Amino acid sequence: MYQSSMLGKPARDWTRLEQSYRGRMERGNAISGHKIVPHQDAVALMEAVIEPGDRVCIEGNNQKHADFLAAELARCSPERIHGLHIVQSNIALPTHLDVFENGLAEKLDFCYSGPQGVRISRLVKDGQVKVGAIHTYLELYSRYFCDLTPHVSFIAADAADRDGNLYTGVNTEDTPAIVEATAFKSGILIAQVNRIVDRVPRVDVPGDWVSYVIESPKPYYIEPIFTRDPAVITEIQILMAMMVIRGIYEKYGVTRLNHGIGFDTAAIELILPTYAADLGLKGKICRYMSVNPCPTLIPAIESGFIDGIHCAGSEVGMSDYVAARSDVFFIGRDGSMRSNRVFCQLAGHYADLFIGSTLQIDLEGNSSTATHNRITGFGGAPNFGSESRGRRHASPSWLLAGQEASRDPYRMPRGRKLVVQLVQTFSDPTSPTFVERLDAWTLKDSFGLPLPPVMVYGDDLTHIVTEEGIANLLLCDDLAEREQAIRAVAGYTPVGLGRDRAVVTRLRAKGAVVYPEDIGVDKRLATRDLLAARSIKDLVRWSGGLYDPPARFRNW
Amino acid sequence: MYQSSMLGKPARDWTRLEQSYRGRMERGNAISGHKIVPHQDAVALMEAVIEPGDRVCIEGNNQKHADFLAAELARCSPERIHGLHIVQSNIALPTHLDVFENGLAEKLDFCYSGPQGVRISRLVKDGQVKVGAIHTYLELYSRYFCDLTPHVSFIAADAADRDGNLYTGVNTEDTPAIVEATAFKSGILIAQVNRIVDRVPRVDVPGDWVSYVIESPKPYYIEPIFTRDPAVITEIQILMAMMVIRGIYEKYGVTRLNHGIGFDTAAIELILPTYAADLGLKGKICRYMSVNPCPTLIPAIESGFIDGIHCAGSEVGMSDYVAARSDVFFIGRDGSMRSNRVFCQLAGHYADLFIGSTLQIDLEGNSSTATHNRITGFGGAPNFGSESRGRRHASPSWLLAGQEASRDPYRMPRGRKLVVQLVQTFSDPTSPTFVERLDAWTLKDSFGLPLPPVMVYGDDLTHIVTEEGIANLLLCDDLAEREQAIRAVAGYTPVGLGRDRAVVTRLRAKGAVVYPEDIGVDKRLATRDLLAARSIKDLVRWSGGLYDPPARFRNW
Repeated sequence: MYQSSMLGKPARDWTRLEQSYRGRMERGNAISGHKIVPHQDAVALMEAVIEPGDRVCIEGNNQKHADFLAAELARCSPERIHGLHIVQSNIALPTHLDVFENGLAEKLDFCYSGPQGVRISRLVKDGQVKVGAIHTYLELYSRYFCDLTPHVSFIAADAADRDGNLYTGVNTEDTPAIVEATAFKSGILIAQVNRIVDRVPRVDVPGDWVSYVIESPKPYYIEPIFTRDPAVITEIQILMAMMVIRGIYEKYGVTRLNHGIGFDTAAIELILPTYAADLGLKGKICRYMSVNPCPTLIPAIESGFIDGIHCAGSEVGMSDYVAARSDVFFIGRDGSMRSNRVFCQLAGHYADLFIGSTLQIDLEGNSSTATHNRITGFGGAPNFGSESRGRRHASPSWLLAGQEASRDPYRMPRGRKLVVQLVQTFSDPTSPTFVERLDAWTLKDSFGLPLPPVMVYGDDLTHIVTEEGIANLLLCDDLAEREQAIRAVAGYTPVGLGRDRAVVTRLRAKGAVVYPEDIGVDKRLATRDLLAARSIKDLVRWSGGLYDPPARFRNW
Repeated sequence: MYQSSMLGKPARDWTRLEQSYRGRMERGNAISGHKIVPHQDAVALMEAVIEPGDRVCIEGNNQKHADFLAAELARCSPERIHGLHIVQSNIALPTHLDVFENGLAEKLDFCYSGPQGVRISRLVKDGQVKVGAIHTYLELYSRYFCDLTPHVSFIAADAADRDGNLYTGVNTEDTPAIVEATAFKSGILIAQVNRIVDRVPRVDVPGDWVSYVIESPKPYYIEPIFTRDPAVITEIQILMAMMVIRGIYEKYGVTRLNHGIGFDTAAIELILPTYAADLGLKGKICRYMSVNPCPTLIPAIESGFIDGIHCAGSEVGMSDYVAARSDVFFIGRDGSMRSNRVFCQLAGHYADLFIGSTLQIDLEGNSSTATHNRITGFGGAPNFGSESRGRRHASPSWLLAGQEASRDPYRMPRGRKLVVQLVQTFSDPTSPTFVERLDAWTLKDSFGLPLPPVMVYGDDLTHIVTEEGIANLLLCDDLAEREQAIRAVAGYTPVGLGRDRAVVTRLRAKGAVVYPEDIGVDKRLATRDLLAARSIKDLVRWSGGLYDPPARFRNW
């Protein structure tokens, strides 16, 4: 009987997307007649190739932005274009939300919003933005190859030749993931480039993957978000960095890791050539990193501490320095860096350690940067800061962490990734970092989210480091011990004051709570003298003049 | 005091790799004088560009192999080339191990060995192969961007033009990951191609990333490992497939998933257009898949069950069919499929469900295909079959599975990926699938591995489906209940006979153990009549003649 379902199978056309693509291209070619389109025709091109209800990706990274195309899209007619579903990692520019306010787009799937967090929240409450989900980077890219493939994508590159071959240069970030998903599922790919040249320095995106190229009136917008001025690093941050180096990097022998971005991790980077070197740890820790080229890494690189760094993107002012350090960074034949967020995120996910900061940590160790009335998202932190269950290769740090976690009821031995939160007990005098209940719960209710937006889950977290000491959650037998270990390092916050001194003493005896003196960290050494560089100018000097900091960081 | 460490910083050259690359290229160019090198000069080229101790990757995928270059490397002089560290996903060809036996290579980091498993094991015992680690695919690619970047890589492509632009065609697999890591860290990239043409159909790898191209005397070796003949699917497999559809796909509303390769999952694919369609599940389950284009998917695709499929590679005989289904598959402007294992693995990892088979399952639910005296590895299964801790977007199936798992001591709600093992209680009359102790433990001891090689860990596994029924491990309160749920579906194996009937009755009452009748699965329907296609010939008919099966599968 069922055989009939084969004979009587529905006659269906399986090339609808392809036909739609050809129709869009015909309409687009009628505007320009060439792959290179004048920027004055951007709106006309978009109204010709975009169809109502399309999934659209406007490349918006941590740094590099297709800002011209984003602004032009916002200028399109909502009669011609409406009901768009925006699928992009970062909502960072006002124009990204103008697209919603102007009635062009309705639905949003994204990863991170940053400065636009408050405005998104308002638009969601007003019903002008329907949020599908807040993703991590790898997760959103994955859906580009599953159920969220873009119909039209706008990307940004440094240069293009007349065949549409693109040079993304040092700031690749999301480009390869967006391009591949769009170009190979009958999607329209429009690139905004800073300049059109006869020959690109190297081909990062083959021209036959690109539909149209527009030379932007001005270079794409880029933000130096990974630059931290050593001048404002505090002695408390230096003390915490010393504890991380002795209590975690040295103890576990951490050679492959990812550093979150902040002054706390910058402090670690800046005492590698001094404190860590004096401990004889050069060549024993921090050899391979997955991180953008943060200027505060320069002294450690110059001191020969770091063998290799793979980057998701670049950082303003670091291009010349990075290009001159091809043993450390990934560099193309043209002499400029190749970055790629997919591989950087993967390298970090499968590395031995992630260390970052957060705004709030609860009694289970769940942490979140989500605060009342702001939808921000977490970008890459949840991938870096989660246990890599698909990992099968061993390393000393992974095995030791796994042994410490072995009170897990399962008898099958397994390694563990080290996931560390590096925080001060108060983020400001009125805001304790340690709380009984994360603001994420309120956010869940106010925005009708299916779950509280947690950045790093407690069961993925292995250590918390504060100015008080280190809580090693791997050595806690149950949630009650875990809670007391967390209280033990929570200082004078209400959570900290609620500690049970007897339990904490027992936890300290077995190493689940560690104070500086327990690991030979001399608090008197925790001064700015320990910083290999104490100013941006010092970093420039370390770089032999190759680092060219943005004007706002120059005070000389 | 520390400032001095800056002034007195070690003068070091940071372009050693780059200089090494230039030296290698000079020696290589002396052989050929051109990017296109005659195949007769392959050995001379290799002896010129490879240096002792290099990390070398010979592209060896599930299917596509740089077999000519592998054979030529094995012919090189061990006086010129020795101490190589081979870093590649698949050890599948005898020549891959000849490289070790001939004294060229010493160390091996890989993912999967398959047919060479026994020989590797012998070489390891003889000390001729030192295994660094056995990885999963994504994990090894990640290390290409961390501590295992290749100095020299050999890849395979369908065609190249005279500038070295490569066309990988439908079988991309590992190529993008290998190429990017090698080309951008001063590595030498040598491509073997089936033909050199004036213009490639599309550019998959830009020519300026490629060092040398060699036209191989014969097309690269490729293996049809994803083809399963419906003729040998049994009624037991059909019954299990019915249980999966009702008890898991329908219950959780699974729309995004990955199918392992085997007759068990082929049976599911072949009853989607019949059994699942009659249940009204079309459009409600199995809409997006991350899997190679298995011929047994054809009836489901033709019936409009599957909206999208992203592939790691292709399958012999499927090219024309896939090309004609551009709404479903990822297709390039040239009309041929684009595959990419990195994105396929990622899409599967972040999907809602993985279902596959294994050889052994223990009482905690740990499973492994590792058996005595064979080192095989697991390829992609551990990434597909592990909880995606970095995932933050919700879906109905993910939320429901998370709710069922909520007896987890942690109070923070969280979703769960469905990870299903689909096995018969005996893999053959003398080999029970369910065991008290995995052979992996013996393997650990005999090869001195740091941990037993487990494919899917028990704490990542959510369901086990056998011909007896379904064990839902999410609903088990503790390891004792989990053990009894597993015994309950283990049939007449010693493990199954050891069940506690009282406990099993209680587990069945709460849905942790499910028998066919509990979910309305009528065993009498479990006949081959339910298969939408019962032979390779049926698949060809479903495909409208577009599927062109390899000769060995043709019996007409």
